[in-house]
Amino acid sequence: MEQTIRPPRGRLAVLMPGLGAVATTLIAGVAAVRRQLAEPVGSLTQMGRMPGEDGSPVRIADVVPLATLDELVFGGWDVYPDNVYEAARKAAVLEPAQLQALRPELERIRPMEAVFDPAYVPNLHGSHVKDVRGKAAQARALMDDIRGFMQANGCERAVMVWCASTEVYTQPSMVHQDLDAFEEGLENDDPAIAPSMIYAYAAIRCGVPFANGAPNLACDVPALVQLAKRCGVPIAGKDFKTGQTLMKTILAPGLQARALGINGWFSSNILGNRDGYVLDNPDNFRTKEVSKLGVLEDILRPDLNPDLYGDMHHQVRINYYPPHGDNKESWDNIDIFGWLGYRMQIKINFLCRDSILAAPIALDLALLSDLASRAGMSGVQEWLSFYFKSPQVEGGARPEHDVFRQLAKLHETLRRIGALEPADEAGNEAPAAALAAAATH
Amino acid sequence: MEQTIRPPRGRLAVLMPGLGAVATTLIAGVAAVRRQLAEPVGSLTQMGRMPGEDGSPVRIADVVPLATLDELVFGGWDVYPDNVYEAARKAAVLEPAQLQALRPELERIRPMEAVFDPAYVPNLHGSHVKDVRGKAAQARALMDDIRGFMQANGCERAVMVWCASTEVYTQPSMVHQDLDAFEEGLENDDPAIAPSMIYAYAAIRCGVPFANGAPNLACDVPALVQLAKRCGVPIAGKDFKTGQTLMKTILAPGLQARALGINGWFSSNILGNRDGYVLDNPDNFRTKEVSKLGVLEDILRPDLNPDLYGDMHHQVRINYYPPHGDNKESWDNIDIFGWLGYRMQIKINFLCRDSILAAPIALDLALLSDLASRAGMSGVQEWLSFYFKSPQVEGGARPEHDVFRQLAKLHETLRRIGALEPADEAGNEAPAAALAAAATH
Amino acid sequence: MEQTIRPPRGRLAVLMPGLGAVATTLIAGVAAVRRQLAEPVGSLTQMGRMPGEDGSPVRIADVVPLATLDELVFGGWDVYPDNVYEAARKAAVLEPAQLQALRPELERIRPMEAVFDPAYVPNLHGSHVKDVRGKAAQARALMDDIRGFMQANGCERAVMVWCASTEVYTQPSMVHQDLDAFEEGLENDDPAIAPSMIYAYAAIRCGVPFANGAPNLACDVPALVQLAKRCGVPIAGKDFKTGQTLMKTILAPGLQARALGINGWFSSNILGNRDGYVLDNPDNFRTKEVSKLGVLEDILRPDLNPDLYGDMHHQVRINYYPPHGDNKESWDNIDIFGWLGYRMQIKINFLCRDSILAAPIALDLALLSDLASRAGMSGVQEWLSFYFKSPQVEGGARPEHDVFRQLAKLHETLRRIGALEPADEAGNEAPAAALAAAATH
Amino acid sequence: MEQTIRPPRGRLAVLMPGLGAVATTLIAGVAAVRRQLAEPVGSLTQMGRMPGEDGSPVRIADVVPLATLDELVFGGWDVYPDNVYEAARKAAVLEPAQLQALRPELERIRPMEAVFDPAYVPNLHGSHVKDVRGKAAQARALMDDIRGFMQANGCERAVMVWCASTEVYTQPSMVHQDLDAFEEGLENDDPAIAPSMIYAYAAIRCGVPFANGAPNLACDVPALVQLAKRCGVPIAGKDFKTGQTLMKTILAPGLQARALGINGWFSSNILGNRDGYVLDNPDNFRTKEVSKLGVLEDILRPDLNPDLYGDMHHQVRINYYPPHGDNKESWDNIDIFGWLGYRMQIKINFLCRDSILAAPIALDLALLSDLASRAGMSGVQEWLSFYFKSPQVEGGARPEHDVFRQLAKLHETLRRIGALEPADEAGNEAPAAALAAAATH
Repeated sequence: MEQTIRPPRGRLAVLMPGLGAVATTLIAGVAAVRRQLAEPVGSLTQMGRMPGEDGSPVRIADVVPLATLDELVFGGWDVYPDNVYEAARKAAVLEPAQLQALRPELERIRPMEAVFDPAYVPNLHGSHVKDVRGKAAQARALMDDIRGFMQANGCERAVMVWCASTEVYTQPSMVHQDLDAFEEGLENDDPAIAPSMIYAYAAIRCGVPFANGAPNLACDVPALVQLAKRCGVPIAGKDFKTGQTLMKTILAPGLQARALGINGWFSSNILGNRDGYVLDNPDNFRTKEVSKLGVLEDILRPDLNPDLYGDMHHQVRINYYPPHGDNKESWDNIDIFGWLGYRMQIKINFLCRDSILAAPIALDLALLSDLASRAGMSGVQEWLSFYFKSPQVEGGARPEHDVFRQLAKLHETLRRIGALEPADEAGNEAPAAALAAAATH
Repeated sequence: MEQTIRPPRGRLAVLMPGLGAVATTLIAGVAAVRRQLAEPVGSLTQMGRMPGEDGSPVRIADVVPLATLDELVFGGWDVYPDNVYEAARKAAVLEPAQLQALRPELERIRPMEAVFDPAYVPNLHGSHVKDVRGKAAQARALMDDIRGFMQANGCERAVMVWCASTEVYTQPSMVHQDLDAFEEGLENDDPAIAPSMIYAYAAIRCGVPFANGAPNLACDVPALVQLAKRCGVPIAGKDFKTGQTLMKTILAPGLQARALGINGWFSSNILGNRDGYVLDNPDNFRTKEVSKLGVLEDILRPDLNPDLYGDMHHQVRINYYPPHGDNKESWDNIDIFGWLGYRMQIKINFLCRDSILAAPIALDLALLSDLASRAGMSGVQEWLSFYFKSPQVEGGARPEHDVFRQLAKLHETLRRIGALEPADEAGNEAPAAALAAAATH
Repeated sequence: MEQTIRPPRGRLAVLMPGLGAVATTLIAGVAAVRRQLAEPVGSLTQMGRMPGEDGSPVRIADVVPLATLDELVFGGWDVYPDNVYEAARKAAVLEPAQLQALRPELERIRPMEAVFDPAYVPNLHGSHVKDVRGKAAQARALMDDIRGFMQANGCERAVMVWCASTEVYTQPSMVHQDLDAFEEGLENDDPAIAPSMIYAYAAIRCGVPFANGAPNLACDVPALVQLAKRCGVPIAGKDFKTGQTLMKTILAPGLQARALGINGWFSSNILGNRDGYVLDNPDNFRTKEVSKLGVLEDILRPDLNPDLYGDMHHQVRINYYPPHGDNKESWDNIDIFGWLGYRMQIKINFLCRDSILAAPIALDLALLSDLASRAGMSGVQEWLSFYFKSPQVEGGARPEHDVFRQLAKLHETLRRIGALEPADEAGNEAPAAALAAAATH
Repeated sequence: MEQTIRPPRGRLAVLMPGLGAVATTLIAGVAAVRRQLAEPVGSLTQMGRMPGEDGSPVRIADVVPLATLDELVFGGWDVYPDNVYEAARKAAVLEPAQLQALRPELERIRPMEAVFDPAYVPNLHGSHVKDVRGKAAQARALMDDIRGFMQANGCERAVMVWCASTEVYTQPSMVHQDLDAFEEGLENDDPAIAPSMIYAYAAIRCGVPFANGAPNLACDVPALVQLAKRCGVPIAGKDFKTGQTLMKTILAPGLQARALGINGWFSSNILGNRDGYVLDNPDNFRTKEVSKLGVLEDILRPDLNPDLYGDMHHQVRINYYPPHGDNKESWDNIDIFGWLGYRMQIKINFLCRDSILAAPIALDLALLSDLASRAGMSGVQEWLSFYFKSPQVEGGARPEHDVFRQLAKLHETLRRIGALEPADEAGNEAPAAALAAAATH
């Protein structure tokens, strides 16, 4: 029996909970790229290269069969009723003149009513929410939304990428441990089931891959992993790896490569967008903090290198600072030591743009999740760790944070997928087993 | 016929042209480490780990048979007559109290008279130079020095690491193209033969591996590569990869991994040590500048990625600024662009210590050059690129600058060497061919 | 009747609650300066100049009759029993070798037992505290300490400078409103009377000037101002103006001078000394935050310049970060706008040393408070605002924060004092009225 | 005899040699302000306040009678024929949409042909130059331009502000020493007479005040000072004090106020506009460097404070870096020392906009030069030092660099001018003597 991959025929729905700064920057950007007004910089699937068979760089789209930008149809949910043009203007990421040129196209995209629970995002007070009582009923309403959107837009396939706000910090409890308990919890309106989990549940149930761009759990609970495997759906998370953490996962392996010691890494951020406002709530920040703090330990392994990293103070601060809007700025102070313990310092000031860095990641995750789905892969896609601050892994494995090892694993998986035979007309699916092995090792 | 490696039996002479800041920091540091007063941080051979057979990290000294620090005997040449204690005090890298504790041991090491040509380092005016006319005679005097030092100190083997000042910028000319022309040039006192080349020639002729820590050519000319192969001697260069360029070769691959564009990279340095003083001369700076500028182009490949890197302005400035002494400080401004071409900036301020970063590199190169020699490897050791700003390669190959690929190549070669059988008592050498292949690919 | 000033005859006791980093750096420094091992840089009274009568710079000690360093006798109280040598070693501000050279002299200075209330500094757990119940009794014990110290050390005069930790945030309440209420509160052990107030009360009652280096209220309550006036004692506060706030009060007037607008000023600090540890408690930080936040508003006057400063976000963060010890580091991001509202940014990274900046301020305040006392000045010394983050003023006046105006007022007052006639042998005091006018306008 | 000031009746021509980034930003900005599309931030005359009689802040326009923006008529000369709209688009300082809104008004302003000498600006190759041989004839042609412009635009008065490129470094020679020599030099085409001097000569001869925004000599030679006095014309210079030097003259007085020592101040700049391109020529840079270097010495007086400033290394670098365009960025490293000589560092990164900072200075100088002229002041206006990096002074006086003292002098002079009686209908002028005294002390 041969392994095969379904070709990317037909339109692909890209559905996003949260039509805020990231989602509207993505949607407007793809519109601009389609009209050749701009380039999709930062997107590996569109602009990146990987080493080909002979080592020379080849475009990723030449290695694996990806959906093209022309085939994407964007939609989503939001707690505010603004259409994408209005939301993009408020997000103030892209220049007004640029948005103006795309206005009619963007105005046509209106959010569906959101499933929302203020207990999970106390700082937001949206009104555009479903008038549906009960989490099970909310899940069904979302499934109706998904199917309705696909039908209305003539889509063959769909993917869901969580672009909404960070929810308050929670840890998995009994209700998340297996699918039965979870579905019972939905019926019972268990408060431990967050809105993001209801979205993830609805997506997976519909056979739609789910990728989580925020640090809250969403699909990162055993019940939903189980469901994803049962339904043959790929899932991935958590938390888009953008500015500061991206830099950290680039730099830390470099310092480690040189056997330089680290005794402190202080990271501060200032940002003024809706994300910053939500994170101004300590419980929501806690979710983000946990996501950001794990990075160094996993790369540097103080347990194995106590002389170099055993006494490392790692702190992360996020400050809501309105004057900067979406122009997130990070400042890192890294205290390192070298030969004989002599101390040195590295200061990094990154004047980044949060959504400009996140949008191409959301795009790549949409296209690669769809690719995985067509290749018959299901469950946690560890090979997509490259894109996440806090990579979801299976069964207590140690996540890989080193961006260069993540990239190597991404390339390796793409190469394996690229070697699959296309499925024949009848569209028989590829067996998942071998690929899953490729993706999780 | 089996491949073998000679074990590191007996004492190893580490001979350094230039007993300045780097060399004295190395010598004092090894003395402190031997007495367990400090740790050799920054040295991969002493503190680093690499993935072992099962992927878990192992110490490098457990993979390959390295000379131990106890077996090292340090010596060198300098244009100033100061002993190592005095020179270290003037260099002002290590704390006076620390040097005081090692004083007797350091005072015993006195430089041999240097081969020096003021035309190559106009800003230095040393007096402790050999009173020998003619470059051929100078080469012979150096060979006498090497053999004399080894005999006097009971050394079985030796390595030479260039730790002296950067010479003025020159490009290879006819006299460097083959060994006959070079040796004729020595006899004729050809002005195109720099002192560093005379040292390299003397070392190789004596069967002593040569590693070049400065950006001047030294062994990076066809004549000396030819000699190294003929004599079965490993050579490597150029220019210790310390602060700013190290950061560059860490960061650039990371930005590239994310398909982020770069339109400018401005690098400025301030330093106040002897190195800075020498580089204050434009002709000497030119040598350094060429070494530092090549890095980005080779990593980012603007030829293949013109949309992302085709319009990149890369500038490097070095400023002699006495207040900072050896505390070199770099400041980088990196202008990047992401999604739709939106611009962002990264600023890096590295408060480093030049010699603290360089000393462990010199140590590693001494030990790994000796390792290569015992493993029968000769000619250019491209697998040591990890340590160099401007890696010497053979025959027009493209140097590898990406620090993570350099590290992978280093690991791979160490693994191959680690798999060699020890040579038997008779000490028959390992055939170089297979290893050379490993090292240069 | 003529105005006179008593000459600085005899020894001056400098008594400090809190023999921690600042106090020990001051004491060790004065010891080093006396032996000509170092210079009292940062002290205006020792190294600074002011415009003389003809505008050309003259030394301050040539303008007014100051006590000399040789006449100072240091003492203090602390919750830890370490002598000054031990405390200075733990504070790790000065180099061990430097402290070693002064060791016998520093070891002789041992703290008296402190008046301490853990409710005011929850993060400290000192044991070297007075076993005296009741705040009135504690005040009497401190007065005994003061008189005992002066007698034992043959001191003619004394000053007290608060160098202890920041207490938790409180606002003045009824018990602070007049002296009777305050003294009744002492008798009743009113919880709103902080230890710093007991010290201030004891000092003033003894005729000893009091200066407050921390942001807690201490003498900044009506009851103690009343007492100071009644007793003819000068007082001053609050909070030594060191690193970041110093920079702020230098820069803000400069930006304002150019009519440049500001829409955000974000200030972050990392420090790892005891001060940082205490401020890690939110209630203690609140005291500091209030002290630091008032600065900009008073300089920029958004009420008068709403177009330029009406929408300014000012945030201050302090992070306890042990790797830096006393080497406090601040990072400021200032968002300014110019012509037509175009935006620009200023980033300031100050790698300072907290106690190195604070010690000379404590010295100047000791000497200038004594000067004021000899000149017959009493009550709040607004002319010492130059030294404080949050200058204590009288009766609801607006504090002056602009460092250049503060300096002008300091100079003006010194000039007036310098013009006083020396008191005759009988030591009759100068009338306070005219001087108080000089000092408070 | 009463002192009087002529009221600002009628239109004022503002003539600028160099219609580049600064001039077009000024012209477009004033157009935008007139239409209430933006605010003239950074202009003291428009937005600033000064202490009024009772100390409370008052608007400067309420203190002295200034020309209003509605009365200004802009014109100038350039070596390129672009109209102001085109030139502003190329300068890329203001946003395209903003310029578009002002387009017709800006297109109407076309440069007159320039007097240009490539020997003074080797990097520029303009074609829009006068076809007039001989410097005397060129001066006459400029005078014709001035009078023609005033007549054509119905202007009562005019001022000239040099906004053109920095000329190569020269020092005053014999031909500049007195007016006769200078005028003879004009006739003889003396190569030491720079184009900027011809402009200044023409302006002064026409009774038009001249202010010099670049560091080249222009009116800063005895001959032209003599002419200015003889003709009763105010002149001022040199070099608009914008980003880095502004910061320096703010910070240095602050550090000095605290008696903190400085042993190094390293200043680097990157900029990519035409100014940067011109300064890429070492001879032109030399002019700028001299202007920028004098600042610290005059403020800190190492001669009087050798312990604090006697060993200070001050370096300034300017790097032409195209990616930043007009967004000049400076980076300063300041090495300071405090108590006992302990070292600290301040790093300042100023992301400024060159022309945004310069345009309001040019505006203020135009209005204040006109004010001075109406008040009968002539010769060097030292009270305008506030605006200049390298203030022109008379007769070997020491320039004042401290921005706070400069501001005080500015305020004082404005107060004196504000106290003048308006001239009566007949328009009799104010006597210059008393005012000149105010302005030069």
